[in-house]
Amino acid sequence: MKPLTGNAVVAQSGGPTAVINSSACGVIEEVLRHGAAIAHIYGANNGILGIVQEDLFDLGGESPDTIADLRRSPSSAIGSCRYKLGDLTKDREKYQRLIDVFKAHDIRYFFYIGGNDSMDTADKVNRLAREQNYDLRVMGVPKTIDNDLAATDHCPGYGSVAKYLATAVMEAGRDTEAMYTFDPVTVTEAMGRNTGWIAAATGLARRREDEAPHLIYVPEIPFSAERFLADVREVHRRLGRAFVVVAEGIKNEKGQYVAAQAEVDSFGHRQLGGVADYLRQLITREIGLKSRYNKLDTCQRNAIHFASKTDSDEAYRCGQEAVRQALSGTSGKMVTLVREGEKPYRCGTGLADLAEVANGVKYLPREFLDVAGTRITEAMRAYAGPLLLGEVPIRVGSDGLPEFVRFQRRPVPKKLPAFVGKQQ
Amino acid sequence: MKPLTGNAVVAQSGGPTAVINSSACGVIEEVLRHGAAIAHIYGANNGILGIVQEDLFDLGGESPDTIADLRRSPSSAIGSCRYKLGDLTKDREKYQRLIDVFKAHDIRYFFYIGGNDSMDTADKVNRLAREQNYDLRVMGVPKTIDNDLAATDHCPGYGSVAKYLATAVMEAGRDTEAMYTFDPVTVTEAMGRNTGWIAAATGLARRREDEAPHLIYVPEIPFSAERFLADVREVHRRLGRAFVVVAEGIKNEKGQYVAAQAEVDSFGHRQLGGVADYLRQLITREIGLKSRYNKLDTCQRNAIHFASKTDSDEAYRCGQEAVRQALSGTSGKMVTLVREGEKPYRCGTGLADLAEVANGVKYLPREFLDVAGTRITEAMRAYAGPLLLGEVPIRVGSDGLPEFVRFQRRPVPKKLPAFVGKQQ
Repeated sequence: MKPLTGNAVVAQSGGPTAVINSSACGVIEEVLRHGAAIAHIYGANNGILGIVQEDLFDLGGESPDTIADLRRSPSSAIGSCRYKLGDLTKDREKYQRLIDVFKAHDIRYFFYIGGNDSMDTADKVNRLAREQNYDLRVMGVPKTIDNDLAATDHCPGYGSVAKYLATAVMEAGRDTEAMYTFDPVTVTEAMGRNTGWIAAATGLARRREDEAPHLIYVPEIPFSAERFLADVREVHRRLGRAFVVVAEGIKNEKGQYVAAQAEVDSFGHRQLGGVADYLRQLITREIGLKSRYNKLDTCQRNAIHFASKTDSDEAYRCGQEAVRQALSGTSGKMVTLVREGEKPYRCGTGLADLAEVANGVKYLPREFLDVAGTRITEAMRAYAGPLLLGEVPIRVGSDGLPEFVRFQRRPVPKKLPAFVGKQQ
Repeated sequence: MKPLTGNAVVAQSGGPTAVINSSACGVIEEVLRHGAAIAHIYGANNGILGIVQEDLFDLGGESPDTIADLRRSPSSAIGSCRYKLGDLTKDREKYQRLIDVFKAHDIRYFFYIGGNDSMDTADKVNRLAREQNYDLRVMGVPKTIDNDLAATDHCPGYGSVAKYLATAVMEAGRDTEAMYTFDPVTVTEAMGRNTGWIAAATGLARRREDEAPHLIYVPEIPFSAERFLADVREVHRRLGRAFVVVAEGIKNEKGQYVAAQAEVDSFGHRQLGGVADYLRQLITREIGLKSRYNKLDTCQRNAIHFASKTDSDEAYRCGQEAVRQALSGTSGKMVTLVREGEKPYRCGTGLADLAEVANGVKYLPREFLDVAGTRITEAMRAYAGPLLLGEVPIRVGSDGLPEFVRFQRRPVPKKLPAFVGKQQ
């Protein structure tokens, strides 16, 4: 089969990760190996927004070293956004704009690195192009620290946030261990609005019964303040200290966010300080124990300085495989990770329909936590453990700090009038 | 001179650091090299509290590998506390108890690793021993991430928190750079109740004009909410984003903590969420910009996984030098770090009176910040830069997470009745 010839665009979407640039690197390097089919590869400034605004830059104009160094650089080097496109009817003009921009630049390959919202967008672009007989190959590359995408064993970005946050919990846990006579309780907030994958991963830090984290709370299990306080009391009575990890998205029995509850109950209409701060106040007020909290927020998802090599390598392969599949005629699919073996862990790639990923959320299985729901089981260790292995070799500058790459961003000349539709 | 023979005790005090165990390692290894003078070296469980409670363990009973691995392990492995002893008159029974415990165990060498409160305690113990003609050598080993001890060029613990937090700011800064269309402002809270050394060190992350952090706020410069909001507006107008670092201890023009102000103004009598959360709310309310915050809290001071080798090595040398000085007859002094050369940076050790360190606080010099007080100058770069160099080689286990050491803690049999005085 003669491959489809034309140009390619790659975009990054949603919250950055430590290894989303590895996926971009996999896409770009694989495209550059197939110059006969794909003449140019463009980056879309700030994700899908860059396509809507025809704000593209030529990745072929970047040096091979810059491209290679993407694997050592955190966050989304191409630029990202949260730009929600709705259904094909309501937001048709925006979807049409994407197709128009693709046509104007002879873009025949669209690689979209993102989570389920992005796969939804990619799916609709793919369908619209087919409707209009515009030959376009659309491939999704999975990315989310949340690890909640359907159809894939796990998600690039997860292993790195797990490795780093588990390490931070080990380190801060040693602090609580040394200072328990003064600071007996620490609460650490993990990202995760809907799922407890990240919070649960910190359980890997606990190699011994008395080590942090002693208690983990996830959104999948309804949160009860009474039970929480009883848990903390019990651990404190036993060990003289307690180290808690809580997912930002824990919900009460009515399915309401605990952080939102805190907002209504105690904070009036102000913005939230976060659930860890709320729980810390609860512990101090109700148990009378001095308590402090850590909230690593965006630091946790960009920590390339102690990221998982396994995760980074898999992120790269997902990007590479998306290009290989597109060149061989596949479209409308996301690359998935397929676990092919335990001990030793082996992982291959597969494909899933974009629509399947768009509409699914993978929750933490109940059996990955113990009966009480506050500690991880061997099943969780077996699942998540291999994803943390190895360290990404970063480059440290002469000033002792990491060196990250940045693109030159040679703009691609615009060919269309500015988009006048509603942009947000 | 025939050296004083007897036993030694080493204690760690106050907030842990990534390298306080390096100092302990320096003390222990140097003592073990001088077995003719010092028969046993004991650790005091939980700092000075362990001496008051006669709760000692035998460090000579630990394996040499365990002792060596202290250099790869964060926090205070011997145990720490915040146990404040007052003046010699009011708290005399406690100071006397320390002397009694020393006498009961023939302890002739006391090595105290800590900050200015600890040097105050050590100074008083030294004076009381002399008063009572008990031959005791008391040596202080400097430790504080805050870098605010008098008489020393810098403090062990500072270089590591600086390296790690600057790295975290680089990484989170890339997140804000990629996501500015959705999350334009990030506020990161740095430790530092009284001084801006840590907050200022994150300025080293800013290699280019447009890189994070764009604005730094320190306790030494009175904080004005109006000026702060104008600063954020200006940076946002220029770059489309703003990354702010704020020391936890910033104060208003009246010298009141801004975090405490927040408590009174908006939070009723609840405990504080911290100053970064307060500033985030201020930005959102007054400028209407979406804003998020990072608070690494105890994670920042224990981050051995990306700690400064320069800092760790100097921490070791301070411990080692304390032993050498004590063996040669010195007492009532703290080891200091003396900068002996720039380009290349060289650092030796010196001595300061414990009383001088006890009563001093070293503030960030005004000339280390620019006229506006929100960016560091070349003078700050020249001072702090060398302290971040090199990485501590940690050990990573087969599970991909760091391995830290823990003592066996073979207890030293008690010889005295329990202390019945007020303990806190």
